[in-house]
Amino acid sequence: MKRNANHWEGSTWKFWKTSQRNRCIRVLVVALSVICATVVLFAENPPYIPYINTFSSSGSKLSPHCANVSPIQEFSFYARQRSLAQELFNANAAAYIAEPGPSAAYFANISNSHWRLSERPLLLIVSPVVDDHGEVQANISVLSPKFETTRAKLLPIPGQSPPNFFEWAEDTDPYAVAVSTIHNLGSKPIYVDDSVRLFIAEGLQKASAGNLVASAPVAIRLLRERKSSEEIDILKCANEATLLAIREAREKMYIGIRESEAGKLIRDAITSTGLKDAYALTLFGENAALPHGGGTDRVLGAEDLVLIDCGGTLHGYRSDLTRTFALPGSIVSPQQLSIWNIVHEAQSTALNAARNGTITAAVDRAAREVIEGYGYGEYFTHRLGHGIGLETHESPYLRGGSSDIILPGHTFSNEPGIYIEGGIGIRLEDCFYIDENGEGQYLTAGVGGQANNPWDP
Amino acid sequence: MKRNANHWEGSTWKFWKTSQRNRCIRVLVVALSVICATVVLFAENPPYIPYINTFSSSGSKLSPHCANVSPIQEFSFYARQRSLAQELFNANAAAYIAEPGPSAAYFANISNSHWRLSERPLLLIVSPVVDDHGEVQANISVLSPKFETTRAKLLPIPGQSPPNFFEWAEDTDPYAVAVSTIHNLGSKPIYVDDSVRLFIAEGLQKASAGNLVASAPVAIRLLRERKSSEEIDILKCANEATLLAIREAREKMYIGIRESEAGKLIRDAITSTGLKDAYALTLFGENAALPHGGGTDRVLGAEDLVLIDCGGTLHGYRSDLTRTFALPGSIVSPQQLSIWNIVHEAQSTALNAARNGTITAAVDRAAREVIEGYGYGEYFTHRLGHGIGLETHESPYLRGGSSDIILPGHTFSNEPGIYIEGGIGIRLEDCFYIDENGEGQYLTAGVGGQANNPWDP
Repeated sequence: MKRNANHWEGSTWKFWKTSQRNRCIRVLVVALSVICATVVLFAENPPYIPYINTFSSSGSKLSPHCANVSPIQEFSFYARQRSLAQELFNANAAAYIAEPGPSAAYFANISNSHWRLSERPLLLIVSPVVDDHGEVQANISVLSPKFETTRAKLLPIPGQSPPNFFEWAEDTDPYAVAVSTIHNLGSKPIYVDDSVRLFIAEGLQKASAGNLVASAPVAIRLLRERKSSEEIDILKCANEATLLAIREAREKMYIGIRESEAGKLIRDAITSTGLKDAYALTLFGENAALPHGGGTDRVLGAEDLVLIDCGGTLHGYRSDLTRTFALPGSIVSPQQLSIWNIVHEAQSTALNAARNGTITAAVDRAAREVIEGYGYGEYFTHRLGHGIGLETHESPYLRGGSSDIILPGHTFSNEPGIYIEGGIGIRLEDCFYIDENGEGQYLTAGVGGQANNPWDP
Repeated sequence: MKRNANHWEGSTWKFWKTSQRNRCIRVLVVALSVICATVVLFAENPPYIPYINTFSSSGSKLSPHCANVSPIQEFSFYARQRSLAQELFNANAAAYIAEPGPSAAYFANISNSHWRLSERPLLLIVSPVVDDHGEVQANISVLSPKFETTRAKLLPIPGQSPPNFFEWAEDTDPYAVAVSTIHNLGSKPIYVDDSVRLFIAEGLQKASAGNLVASAPVAIRLLRERKSSEEIDILKCANEATLLAIREAREKMYIGIRESEAGKLIRDAITSTGLKDAYALTLFGENAALPHGGGTDRVLGAEDLVLIDCGGTLHGYRSDLTRTFALPGSIVSPQQLSIWNIVHEAQSTALNAARNGTITAAVDRAAREVIEGYGYGEYFTHRLGHGIGLETHESPYLRGGSSDIILPGHTFSNEPGIYIEGGIGIRLEDCFYIDENGEGQYLTAGVGGQANNPWDP
């Protein structure tokens, strides 16, 4: 199987490069080449459908609710790149290297949708360079397989100057080429995104010999972990739209509906808000508590609560929300109501505990103590929450044993739950961010935030 | 978002564990729990549809051609595990660790279809243990997130004794648990599959402190690289079926057909043979040579050749085949015929060069020298081929600069090509294996092997 090949050799290539008169033709040919590369790539791995777009990963029309929320702007990418360069400079590091994925998307708009991983490495390489004014600037390079250079050059990479493209031929060592492109390497460390595949890190280590190759330190991880106001705005709207979708779908539910039907209602409602990649877990009654209760496509009974855990994406950013609710005709037992209120109290307590400077484990503990206080500790069987952004689950995590420090701009899910086998399963989940005053604010606050009670999600 | 939770706490759990009378109920409940876990997991990441099956990844009905080809048998997994244990013992290594994926599928039937990767590690851990008879046996362990232990225990892992299950709670370090499970760790190295994510390797390294954590050496890589006769039989049938599908689809093509229509014909033909995951790249005329010529859904002209690069999977193993051919009504130019024959000669020469003990680069060189000899060297722009098995592209590779040694059981694609911009693109690809006599044999030999001429693919 062959993806593509570098056909731009020989005299035609020289003509291509040297002719100044054929700009229009060149633009057209380059545009067509990307279409072809798409077709060729598709053939190699059918489930992948690549696309090239601008700085947004959302192309669909948005409903009015999020219509005014812009995707990440080009100048924001410049700022991210400069911040990365500054952190590298501060750490006396030579470079930061990532494969296509969330981190490369954050710094240079290279997601897995733009470039699928294969055995042939394509690497983003960012180095700090001090300019004539003594300021640290980001030097952005992309290393690509030689025969895919044409396609690589069409990646919509933002930057104050065009990125440098380097290529490795099939009979060369890509890592040696990667290392050779790094300015002022010396004996400085090379930091890599911690999700790169081990063979990439080992290849770089072997090629660089004396330099440490290791996952990036906390200061660099924090750049992506701590969201800008622009990112918070996107995350707010994604989560608000998801909550509105839950409420809209609930209006259409009825005693007797099946889990699968309710799931479709919620996914359709999310999609209708303009979010992409809608997902929804829908569990009725004891199915919400019992791992072996699902898969039955249960019918909703009058005495059942509905648990919905769902989300979607807006401009590449994720929403994640859970509501456990009753319908107008539901018969809610005192125990259901009591447990619902305990989970709600745990969620409120956790939000208040999450402040600038506290450690993540303390927030998990705060929620857990509420639930333990009511005697249900053993039924809160998972961590309190996870970071959220370009990934639904990303660092840092709100869990026991973690000593990550919470800072302004951090975003988390806050999702305590109580699961009693054979009976009740209740989880409430809202995502929140730490504002500039160091306090937790629900991303759903614009449409009411936390649920009020089982009848008012 | 929550995947699942460990609800098996408290008195019900004790009853569950201790009661000896409720075996049937336990089996039923466990079966239902897997269905639920599937539903819950689905909710977290909608594009993933997990399934649990036996030792085959093919569940569809096969056409007569491959109906007699069995999936990998359970005892073959035992042999793989013992071979791995022996290699670890020989290398004085403590363990081999892999995430779900092709290597974990090879040794323990844990593919990415069985278990999707997330931030929570699930690890296969294989250690060598010397039994009472002085023989080296494989100790198979699985480390899973605690709240997913029930689902992990339902993974269809073959082994002469049931695997050991270890779990890590949300507030603990999974890598510390992983390392603590390894027998006779001492200061021995821990080898990991080289496709694990860097944070997994770094987590293990941190937890094990004094032990080297590194990707597995060649002797272990060779276990998966060198195919057994059972694997060769599967690969043969997958590639034979694919070639038959190409021929069948060609019968239905005509001057005037579109690339998209031809692509559908070939994918349908592959699927009708019983292969799964059919893919097909279909390019007409100069589109086969020009990266910017595709995406046009070109109509087939009388003077065009058809290039089809396609494949599918049988019992998890991949096929990969390319034919460039004419139709009965095609007008084939002398240049087209000449280049077709050169590519064909390069392919034959490469097969003859691929023998036990030769290095992979020499095979690439052999094909390249043929094409260079006719003056087309600059138009053969990619490596000659790749390993093939549970992955379409896997090590070792037939490429310049590689010094991997070819051994019996190795399988490769052999796919020379000549691509002249604006004109002709011809590639011929058959996969082959090295037989017990150390000679290369086409996996397609059972249905004729290499193409004979542009009218007889």
